[in-house]
Amino acid sequence: MLNPQRTLDELKDLRRLTGDDNGAQRVAFTETWAKARAWLRAKLEQLPVEIENDEAGNLWATLRGESDKEVLMGGHIDSVPNGGWLDGCLNTVAALEVLRNIASEGKPPVTVRLVDWTDEEGARFGRSLFGSSAASGTMIPDELRALKDKDGILLTDAIAKYGISLDNILDAHKQLKNAKAYLELHIEQGPVLLDRDEALGVVIGTFGVERHSFRFTGQAAHSGSTPMNRRRDALAAAAKLALVIRDIANRHGGVCTCGRVDTRPGIVTSVVAECDITLDQRHMDADALAAMWREARESAQRFAEEEKCEVTWSKLWDIHPIPFHPQLLDFCEEAVREVTGTAHRLPSGPLHDAAEVARAGVPTVMMFTQSLHGISHNKIEDTKEEHILMSVQAFDKLAHRTMAWVAAQ
Amino acid sequence: MLNPQRTLDELKDLRRLTGDDNGAQRVAFTETWAKARAWLRAKLEQLPVEIENDEAGNLWATLRGESDKEVLMGGHIDSVPNGGWLDGCLNTVAALEVLRNIASEGKPPVTVRLVDWTDEEGARFGRSLFGSSAASGTMIPDELRALKDKDGILLTDAIAKYGISLDNILDAHKQLKNAKAYLELHIEQGPVLLDRDEALGVVIGTFGVERHSFRFTGQAAHSGSTPMNRRRDALAAAAKLALVIRDIANRHGGVCTCGRVDTRPGIVTSVVAECDITLDQRHMDADALAAMWREARESAQRFAEEEKCEVTWSKLWDIHPIPFHPQLLDFCEEAVREVTGTAHRLPSGPLHDAAEVARAGVPTVMMFTQSLHGISHNKIEDTKEEHILMSVQAFDKLAHRTMAWVAAQ
Repeated sequence: MLNPQRTLDELKDLRRLTGDDNGAQRVAFTETWAKARAWLRAKLEQLPVEIENDEAGNLWATLRGESDKEVLMGGHIDSVPNGGWLDGCLNTVAALEVLRNIASEGKPPVTVRLVDWTDEEGARFGRSLFGSSAASGTMIPDELRALKDKDGILLTDAIAKYGISLDNILDAHKQLKNAKAYLELHIEQGPVLLDRDEALGVVIGTFGVERHSFRFTGQAAHSGSTPMNRRRDALAAAAKLALVIRDIANRHGGVCTCGRVDTRPGIVTSVVAECDITLDQRHMDADALAAMWREARESAQRFAEEEKCEVTWSKLWDIHPIPFHPQLLDFCEEAVREVTGTAHRLPSGPLHDAAEVARAGVPTVMMFTQSLHGISHNKIEDTKEEHILMSVQAFDKLAHRTMAWVAAQ
Repeated sequence: MLNPQRTLDELKDLRRLTGDDNGAQRVAFTETWAKARAWLRAKLEQLPVEIENDEAGNLWATLRGESDKEVLMGGHIDSVPNGGWLDGCLNTVAALEVLRNIASEGKPPVTVRLVDWTDEEGARFGRSLFGSSAASGTMIPDELRALKDKDGILLTDAIAKYGISLDNILDAHKQLKNAKAYLELHIEQGPVLLDRDEALGVVIGTFGVERHSFRFTGQAAHSGSTPMNRRRDALAAAAKLALVIRDIANRHGGVCTCGRVDTRPGIVTSVVAECDITLDQRHMDADALAAMWREARESAQRFAEEEKCEVTWSKLWDIHPIPFHPQLLDFCEEAVREVTGTAHRLPSGPLHDAAEVARAGVPTVMMFTQSLHGISHNKIEDTKEEHILMSVQAFDKLAHRTMAWVAAQ
C-alpha cells in the first residue's frame, strides 16, 4: 500500500540528518553524503532487494521480477553545498516508497531497480553527472584525472575513499544491460509549473545547448577627446547582442542568456576596446537550436560592422537535445493527469542523470514537481507538501504502467 | 628671431634623453623627470630670466618687463609611463622658444613667465593637476596624505625628495597674484583636427564632466530553466543604457561613454542578477550637461522598470565646464588663422593645467596641435613636424597679442 506521507516524513528525516541552517550539505564524496547513503541503504535493507555499489559508486537496489527485463527508477541523494532539501533526493526517497509498494504486491512481472547515482551535481570537482555518465559510457575517465577540489585534493583520491577508480569506472555500463525503461522524478528548478499553478509536469527531454563566448574588438579612446562618430565601441556591439538574443529566443521558443561581460581596459575614461560576452542558448529541437546559434553569429557580425569592430567567438560547450521516449511520455501524462487533473508537457533546462541514461539508448522519461519561487541550488528551494504527496502517487502510477509495458515487450 | 626648427630639435633631444623604445618616461617625481627638468632649467639659464621652484614644485622662469602685470605660458614636462613624446612638453619647449624670442626683442612691456607645472598626469599617485591645482587653490592637501604608488611609497615621501610638502603647498597660489593671462599649447589627443585636416585649433574651454556608476539589480536565475518572460535581467537594462547614451550625446552635442561593465554572478549559466556600469558624460555647456545627466537617469529608471529591475547610482566625480576667455579666444583664432589660413574652435575633452588656472580667475586660452591617429598616452602618439613648426609660430603670435592686450589694461 503506497504511503506518500511516509515519503514526506522520510524527506524531513533526511533533511534533519544531513542539512543545517544553510541548507542541504550532501556534497558527494563527503561524510555527510556517506551518512545520507547509509540512511538510504538501511531503509532498502528492510526490502526483499539485492543491494550493490557499481564501479562508479552508484547504489543499486534490485527487486527481482518474473523477467530479467528491468525498469529503473533513479535519482541522486547528493546536493550542492547549502542546497535545497529536495534537489535529487525527492526521487531517491519517492522511488524507495514506490519500490516498497511494488514489493508489497508480490513478485513483479519485471525486475525493478532503484539507483542512487553518484555525484550528479559535480559540486566539489566541477564534473556533474559523474555516476550516470560512467554508466552511460559518455565519460572519458582520463579527462577527470587532474581534477582537484578547492583544497587541492585530487578527485582520484577522493573517490578512492569510496572504492571508486577511474581505471575500471566504465564497467558500470553493464548495469544498463537489461534496462528497458528509466524513470526519474525531480523538482522543476524553474517557474513554469508555478506560473501555471500545476503540481506536476511531464518532461519531454533535456534542452540541447550551444554555449559560446564572443569577443568584440574596437579601439580604446579617450572619453573626453573622442567624438561619438569616431568611436569603435566594443561594448556597444556587445550590448546589442545582449538585447537581440531575447528576440532570437522568443522567435524560436528557446532560451538565450548572456551571463557574463568583461570590458577592457575597463576604465571610466576610455571607450571599451575589447568586450567579452558569454552566450548560452538552449532548445529542445536541434534544428531550432542550430538556427538560434546561426542567428546569434549573424547578429554579432552585423553589430560588429555597425560599430566598426571585429568579432570572434569560441565554443565553451555544446550538447544535442535529448528527447525522452514517446510511449513513456504518454504514460507520464496519464499518471500526472489522474492525480492532478491536468498534465503540462515541458522541457528541462538543466541536465539530469536521465539525459545520460537516455543517451545510452534506454527509454526514459522524467516527471517534474513544482518548485516554489522557481528557485533551486539554494536553501530557499521548496515545494508544497501536497505537491510532494501527489508526486509520489503519480510516480507510482507511472512505474506500474511502465512495468506492464516492459512486461508485454 | 623665432626659430621653430630649434623647438623641433629640442623636442627630439628631450625624447632621446628621457624616452625609450616604449615611449616617454618622464613620470613626475622620478629621476627621469628630474633629468628632463634639469635639461629645461639649463636652457632657461641661458636667458635673462629669474628661475625658481614654488612650494608645489612648479618651475618658474620670469622675464621682467616694464610692468609687473604678467603673461604666463605653461605646460608640463612630465608624462605617463610609456607616454607620447609631445604630451605636455610641446608647450614647455615651445614656450622656451617664444620666451627666447621675446627676450631678444628687449625688455617686454609686461612681465612674461614660463611655468612647468608639477605632475599634471598624476600617473604615479592617481592625482592629476598636482602643481596647477596647488597654485589655483582647489587642491585639498589632506586628501593627498594617504596616497601611495603601486610600490606602497607615500606621495608625501616622494614629493619630500623634491622639497615639496603638503603643509605649505597652497602657498604656491601667490605665483598667480599678478597673472593677467595664461596661455597653453598642447597636442589635441583626439581626432577632431585630424578629421578636419587642420594643423591647429582654438580651444574654447574644458568640458564639464558628470561621472557616475549605475547598479542594476535583477534576479539570478538558471539559464536553462527560466523562461524568457520570467527573467529580471540586470544586464539587459545596462545594455539599453550603454546604447541610449549615444542618442543622448548626439542630441546635445556632448560625449557619453560607458567604460566598464561588471556582471554578477557573472557565470555563463545564470541570468545576471547585478550589473554595474560606469557612465562618463562631458559637455562644454553646463545646462546641456545637466540635461544629459538627467536624461541618463531617466533612461536608466525606465530601463530598470522595463526589465523588472531596480537601479541606483553613485557619483564618481564631477566638474563644471570651464570656458576660456573670449578676448584670448579671439587672439588665438587670429594667430592660428594667420599661420594656417583657418581656425576651428573646439572644446577640450581632457582636463589640462589651463583649467586650474582659469578656475583661479586668470584669463586663459589653449591652442591645440593636431594629433596623428587621434591617440595619446601611448608611444604611437605623434604630430607632423610641419604642424609642430606652425604651432610655435602661432603660439608666438598669440603671446605677442596677449602681451599688448595686458599692457594696455
